[in-house]
Amino acid sequence: MIKTAFAVLGMSCALSLGCLAASASVEQWGIYELALKGPAEGNPFVDVRLTATFTDGVRSAEVEGFYDGDGVYRIRFMPETPGEWRYETRSNRWPLTDRSGVFRVTPASKRNHGPVGVRNTYHFAYADGTPFRPVGTTCYSWTHRPAEMEEQTLKTLSSAPFNKIRMAVLPQAHGIKYMPPTRWPFEGKAPRDWDFTRFNPEFFRHLEKRIGDLCDLGIECDLILFHPYDDDEDWGFETMTAETDDRYVRYLIARLAAYRNVWWSLANEYDFLRTKTDADWDRIFKLIQTKDPYHHLRSIHNGRLIYNHNQPWVTHVSMQNGMATEDPGRATLYRDVYRKPVVYDELKYEGNHELRWAQLDGREMVHRFWSCTVAGTYGGHSEFFADEHNVVWLAQGGVLKGESAPRLAFLRRILEDSPAGGLDPSDHWQDPRMAGKAGHYYLIYFGKETPSSWSPIMYRTGLTDGMEFKADVIDAWNMSITPVDGVFTTKKKDRYMFGDRDGRTIALPERPYMAVRLRYSGGAAPVSTAKAPIEP
Amino acid sequence: MIKTAFAVLGMSCALSLGCLAASASVEQWGIYELALKGPAEGNPFVDVRLTATFTDGVRSAEVEGFYDGDGVYRIRFMPETPGEWRYETRSNRWPLTDRSGVFRVTPASKRNHGPVGVRNTYHFAYADGTPFRPVGTTCYSWTHRPAEMEEQTLKTLSSAPFNKIRMAVLPQAHGIKYMPPTRWPFEGKAPRDWDFTRFNPEFFRHLEKRIGDLCDLGIECDLILFHPYDDDEDWGFETMTAETDDRYVRYLIARLAAYRNVWWSLANEYDFLRTKTDADWDRIFKLIQTKDPYHHLRSIHNGRLIYNHNQPWVTHVSMQNGMATEDPGRATLYRDVYRKPVVYDELKYEGNHELRWAQLDGREMVHRFWSCTVAGTYGGHSEFFADEHNVVWLAQGGVLKGESAPRLAFLRRILEDSPAGGLDPSDHWQDPRMAGKAGHYYLIYFGKETPSSWSPIMYRTGLTDGMEFKADVIDAWNMSITPVDGVFTTKKKDRYMFGDRDGRTIALPERPYMAVRLRYSGGAAPVSTAKAPIEP
Repeated sequence: MIKTAFAVLGMSCALSLGCLAASASVEQWGIYELALKGPAEGNPFVDVRLTATFTDGVRSAEVEGFYDGDGVYRIRFMPETPGEWRYETRSNRWPLTDRSGVFRVTPASKRNHGPVGVRNTYHFAYADGTPFRPVGTTCYSWTHRPAEMEEQTLKTLSSAPFNKIRMAVLPQAHGIKYMPPTRWPFEGKAPRDWDFTRFNPEFFRHLEKRIGDLCDLGIECDLILFHPYDDDEDWGFETMTAETDDRYVRYLIARLAAYRNVWWSLANEYDFLRTKTDADWDRIFKLIQTKDPYHHLRSIHNGRLIYNHNQPWVTHVSMQNGMATEDPGRATLYRDVYRKPVVYDELKYEGNHELRWAQLDGREMVHRFWSCTVAGTYGGHSEFFADEHNVVWLAQGGVLKGESAPRLAFLRRILEDSPAGGLDPSDHWQDPRMAGKAGHYYLIYFGKETPSSWSPIMYRTGLTDGMEFKADVIDAWNMSITPVDGVFTTKKKDRYMFGDRDGRTIALPERPYMAVRLRYSGGAAPVSTAKAPIEP
Repeated sequence: MIKTAFAVLGMSCALSLGCLAASASVEQWGIYELALKGPAEGNPFVDVRLTATFTDGVRSAEVEGFYDGDGVYRIRFMPETPGEWRYETRSNRWPLTDRSGVFRVTPASKRNHGPVGVRNTYHFAYADGTPFRPVGTTCYSWTHRPAEMEEQTLKTLSSAPFNKIRMAVLPQAHGIKYMPPTRWPFEGKAPRDWDFTRFNPEFFRHLEKRIGDLCDLGIECDLILFHPYDDDEDWGFETMTAETDDRYVRYLIARLAAYRNVWWSLANEYDFLRTKTDADWDRIFKLIQTKDPYHHLRSIHNGRLIYNHNQPWVTHVSMQNGMATEDPGRATLYRDVYRKPVVYDELKYEGNHELRWAQLDGREMVHRFWSCTVAGTYGGHSEFFADEHNVVWLAQGGVLKGESAPRLAFLRRILEDSPAGGLDPSDHWQDPRMAGKAGHYYLIYFGKETPSSWSPIMYRTGLTDGMEFKADVIDAWNMSITPVDGVFTTKKKDRYMFGDRDGRTIALPERPYMAVRLRYSGGAAPVSTAKAPIEP
């Protein structure tokens, strides 16, 4: 996915452009890469400053370059609009400064929707407007595994339901004895003989390759920058100085921000990193906010203490709280607190672990995703079924063993067939089981209730008498969608609610995990929703 | 409760002190008041600046004075420590400036525990360390009613379970036709011919009297400064300028901050006041934070939008969300978000209103208080049972008609017999039904479940094998406490939980609203709780 223009040391800018005319184009939200020859002596990671300004005449961005070893410097840029773009470099080294050039950005190809951002306060969309409904999983260390296993993970992902994966830049200790990492982020030697002032480009090239692989699969990469999982290995990555932390983060931004599928997750269980304070996290957030020209999504994931997600630099909530996802009435509460998208990236994991954060059965995992859905939030999957080598999907990737994944694929299809603006709670001050788009689409999920019937009843917003809705009965576990005969016609019941004019009910099978979907199909037109906000 | 020293115009400070030696003492957390004669011409509310610095040689406080009409200026001060205190005034008017004096502060009398503040992150205590467990109610406009009715309200409160009352400074429109207010905060004439630059001292003197009456009853006054309830009356209090708002708030602080039972609630349903922005509320919070020398509790109550209670000037969360209090697993979530005390000041009201925010039956009101309790939070009561004149406790005070109050008195007695540091969730990442003090006290509430028995099971924090607990079965609705014979002896069950060594169970009556209380009674000693924080 990278188009590289290689400007050889000593070539004039005009000449270098001339030479590379054939490759000097890139698609919108692709990666334009400029490679420059520069000094290899001293410590280029620390001594050399390199930036480039890119402009299409309307907008401009300043991008930091990075040293990639062997006297090669690179600057990567993700153009956000098609057209002719120019760049000009600045450096404290003569061979790298004052380089300029022109390149053409072509419209995005069909499967490239750009980076994901926040839309409608609580939801996400790609830059081209395509909705993004996260159905994520977690494999912390899959990029630190033998090639064969990494390929296996990619193969699994290619047919799994997940469009987002949480993964750590730095290796974790889990399973390390069986499959020790072969690449390390810094020059030096494991376990802890590092030169923290020198990065290991090979490590990052590998990471980039995997991020590119995910991009090819249409999977967003929710990249965890720090974590508390060195355990007894004690590689020293948990106790780097603030200066080293910042240099590491800037190096990541310089290398990776041009990848459209990157999200920044500052940490997993940030509060278990007892070596950093809230002020450290604030500083790192602000650094990313300043240095990432594309404003990729930024979050931080909690252990026992919840970070102040009301801070303006947090774009969405990455929550660990399994208990909250047992019930939509719990799951929805964080929405109003933060007025941001809420993703339950850890709602406990499917598995057979002795620890209770990884012993959900498939039904409970699927139930929690559905609870999140009607709460107007998003769930997150992973698995912990250990084999004899302690290989688990959560840590290593590999293959999926649980029962939830196919049901999450089913849920994802339902989401993809739902309103583009996202599902919002219909009446969450009173009944948190229903979400949708007022006047157009309603999804009620009965969870562990086992009703024998349900009579459509919807909060007034967006409704008037005489609107017609078609209904489907959905079995979240058995993955069936059964259309209900006929239509339901709205009639005002009281100050708050509309029901069916003829009092019709929908038969339900007295099983748990059932849902009903109502979709507007005709009759009176939906009403503007601004007139009747949801009342407590 | 006020001791006034009256310094007559033209008297020297020494002389004025000499004159007033007899009255120149006040108890700790009482109100020392200095009255000064000064100019009555022009507009003293705007033209005259008056402050005094009070010091005991160790601490000092700057306090604003206020104009009380008829050429009288007052400065009120609540000394927080016994001993000898001095003051010195500053004013832009000669008769008021450079006054100084000395007075003695005696230790607080028996029923005076000082102002309430936050303790243990999630709870409250009086300044002398006595725990304060809020069991609050709301009567927005009770101080705007005929004297006879106000006395009736005080009589009701004198035997009601409430130790906090939410009440509005400004009148509201509800019931206004039947009982129009006789006093107004500004000079002028209702409905909207006001001079917003001139306060009506009589209005505030009356308010002070009622705050004093509440103080005598041991009731905290959660004073609502702004509200959106002018309705069609349109008195103009909702559309005052920022300058007028600020002057009003400063006048309130000058008059009322010395009352130890005052809490500042910036607004009720703040977001329904569409005439102010979040920036306005931030400004008013910061003004109070700066001007109130005693740092009385500060909060703001929501309608549909939740204010950012993570702001540092918010001392505790005043929440309207009835749905959240149906289940402790919901109610507890705001605690971790804000790391502050959470008070559900509006969890919907007991009543027979057509609107669903005031149609809880007594059982549901009591259930929600108990859910809040085991969630480590606090509930809030009010009633809406209208008579032919539309008089309801919520708006006017008067008498209580609902069924919840005696049960809330019962709950309050249980709270007063609970650990001083407050009840915190025992294992809220997994089972949110239990709260207590690890190793010492556990209260599990079964809500609408109707179990026939329960076998004690407690999260490991604070526990070791061989600890003995006595149990009580509590019926929250029928107000009974039934001791269980014998003791329960702890034994580790698994990584997380301890149960009874002998597997004993406690019989329960298969009714809803039941609770069990376990209290440490002997055997092995409780373990330091720092060693086993609650794990997800």
